[in-house]
Amino acid sequence: MQAEIITIGDEILIGQIIDTNSAWMAQQLNAIGIHVKQVSSVADHPADIIVALTLASGRADLIFITGGLGPTKDDVTKQTLSVYFGCGLRRDPDVLAHVESIFSRNGRPMLEMNRKQADVLDKSDVLFNAMGTAPGMWVTHKGKPYAIMPGVPFEMKHLMQERVLPRLRQMEGRQPLWHHTVLTAGIGESFLAEKIADIESALPSHIHLAYLPKPGFVRLRLTATGANLEILKQETAAVADQLKERLGDYFIANEDTLLEMLIRDFMQQRSLSLATAESCTGGNIARLITALPGSSSMFEGGAVTYSNAVKQAILGVKAETLETHGAVSEQTVREMASGAQNRFQVDYAIAVSGIAGPEGGTAEKPVGLVWIAVAGKTGVVAHKFLFGHDRAINIERSSVAALFMLWRLLHAERGE
Amino acid sequence: MQAEIITIGDEILIGQIIDTNSAWMAQQLNAIGIHVKQVSSVADHPADIIVALTLASGRADLIFITGGLGPTKDDVTKQTLSVYFGCGLRRDPDVLAHVESIFSRNGRPMLEMNRKQADVLDKSDVLFNAMGTAPGMWVTHKGKPYAIMPGVPFEMKHLMQERVLPRLRQMEGRQPLWHHTVLTAGIGESFLAEKIADIESALPSHIHLAYLPKPGFVRLRLTATGANLEILKQETAAVADQLKERLGDYFIANEDTLLEMLIRDFMQQRSLSLATAESCTGGNIARLITALPGSSSMFEGGAVTYSNAVKQAILGVKAETLETHGAVSEQTVREMASGAQNRFQVDYAIAVSGIAGPEGGTAEKPVGLVWIAVAGKTGVVAHKFLFGHDRAINIERSSVAALFMLWRLLHAERGE
Repeated sequence: MQAEIITIGDEILIGQIIDTNSAWMAQQLNAIGIHVKQVSSVADHPADIIVALTLASGRADLIFITGGLGPTKDDVTKQTLSVYFGCGLRRDPDVLAHVESIFSRNGRPMLEMNRKQADVLDKSDVLFNAMGTAPGMWVTHKGKPYAIMPGVPFEMKHLMQERVLPRLRQMEGRQPLWHHTVLTAGIGESFLAEKIADIESALPSHIHLAYLPKPGFVRLRLTATGANLEILKQETAAVADQLKERLGDYFIANEDTLLEMLIRDFMQQRSLSLATAESCTGGNIARLITALPGSSSMFEGGAVTYSNAVKQAILGVKAETLETHGAVSEQTVREMASGAQNRFQVDYAIAVSGIAGPEGGTAEKPVGLVWIAVAGKTGVVAHKFLFGHDRAINIERSSVAALFMLWRLLHAERGE
Repeated sequence: MQAEIITIGDEILIGQIIDTNSAWMAQQLNAIGIHVKQVSSVADHPADIIVALTLASGRADLIFITGGLGPTKDDVTKQTLSVYFGCGLRRDPDVLAHVESIFSRNGRPMLEMNRKQADVLDKSDVLFNAMGTAPGMWVTHKGKPYAIMPGVPFEMKHLMQERVLPRLRQMEGRQPLWHHTVLTAGIGESFLAEKIADIESALPSHIHLAYLPKPGFVRLRLTATGANLEILKQETAAVADQLKERLGDYFIANEDTLLEMLIRDFMQQRSLSLATAESCTGGNIARLITALPGSSSMFEGGAVTYSNAVKQAILGVKAETLETHGAVSEQTVREMASGAQNRFQVDYAIAVSGIAGPEGGTAEKPVGLVWIAVAGKTGVVAHKFLFGHDRAINIERSSVAALFMLWRLLHAERGE
């Protein structure tokens, strides 16, 4: 089954935003056996939209449309679709009530422009959008389904997950396709490939292995196609077991998950508590953990200690340590970790201090130098890292390395 | 002058990579007066590529093609283009020498597969690629120019900057185009539209206004086309001035920038210091600020005080306050802000406490309730917000609202 995605909006064609929606949608569709044949980005111009729809409907079995559903004049998708489908618009009472409730919740008066958000194509099924004022719509036209969604990423994702994918899973003609991803850390892509070369060579032709690196990790994705989904699941799980045995400590999880999520669950189950003490990561580790629902069960809090004065005042790092060894040093990061363990009264503490860049490096301590310590039951473990020159990547890699050190220590001290 | 971009590669259509090239290319093209009419992403399939080329050449004056120029079997762009253009391939001696030099520098043996990288379309001008082994090509076919480049972002950017844009700047028929973006905050899209309706209606037909919302902000983009770029700049700047006057406090900046960047610059210039005290935002505000180079000049540090014990120990919030009013209350968030101002010895402090969700809400204090305080020279300002049900969005909106409150207070106390 072939699909096409049409993204509508001048902002894409002038390069003001990057279209991240299409990649996400393609992943979701692939996962249920729907291939994406083409992605077309067109402007907020009725004629361009109609030509794109006409061409896509000639090539694909299913059409996905995002963007141009806002209340202002520059958004023309709904009116254009009413021309293309040859239907009118009707004001949907449920959507109207929802839009009104959003406005009244925020204590804001409503304009006619906002009420118009409740207008839907009269031959559509409404895809109720709990996350915003623009409803999604599902139209079947000349035998082909069209899913119409706002371009705001979190609204589109909500509609795909709650409304569109459940409908698609009911459709026939999809070819069973199964992805099984294994998460590894602590080993580079080429070394990984060498280590598992014989397993990869022995894969049957209907199972394909892809290497997907991201900072600090390599994901191994097994993609299997065949007639029977259950058999595909069993076959890929068996390969994953081989990989797990071969990779030992490098194997992190049998899914493409977040390390902080594994840490949260591990600590929650054992009633362990955590604090963070961050210098160069600037709160990013705390943010990653607290982004997870339920993290308050194991995360007590953290300190972002950018200046030396704050490292002393909040974490109790000694002035002599900072003077003698500097803020980016094994001694300082160890005192930061122990200090956090003490002040926050927790079982485990992570501390990071480094030079994220682009300024602040010296010959002895260059940009990219990062010290990380983790304090646990049996003492403090510290490691030195030398990352690159890019500030954002240094922050990301330091955060991952710190979480990975915590994960290892948790396993060493409390693991099975 | 209208252009189209065709990106070629299975990895885009299965969602394994996000196409960031097109947005960058569109920006570059817009800057020299070339409009992008459509972006099409197609698979590494000859027939799909030829259909996309045929359709694009019927709509546009200029065609940009990226991707599928690698040495492996799955890349088919060059062979497909030789069919489309009706020409053969020739081995280019300069490109061959360049490819050989890359291999000998790395001490790697060369395969015939690698030599084939030096094959170019025989009716093309070679766009010499100093950054990689795949050459770019420029072909004029039936009077229309085609620029063909590899999909690797830094190679494509190199070719665009060094080879393609200089050629385009020589071409006639480009229409000057200018974008001027105004950043607003604190007012919804529809209210903004109503507030500036007369300014929008009075715009001449060659200036177009678009509304681009992102959490906490609406960007207003003025796009002007005409004969003279300098006049377009003046005209859009004059409209921006009208918008600034009309919008008052809602007007944030005369460009599409980050609020934290404006805050960093403002505080840096006045030698002011900042600390954060975060509960529900979990370090996200500190992370946004410290993501910016040079933030150490104004940011001292922050506390992520998830538990009540930590709010007391690190920020000095009183136990009675927490007992009587709870962690999510005006009183607590005020004490957090003052506490941070004291403990971190800073001029300004931001404090946030709320219920991010999905759990933890009550009838009285529902998910999405957030209290924010900012402490400054003249005291502490606190506001209550009621956001939605999504944890990630509540964190993002709380962070933006807190930065916006700081921005307002800075202006009230120190602004011109």
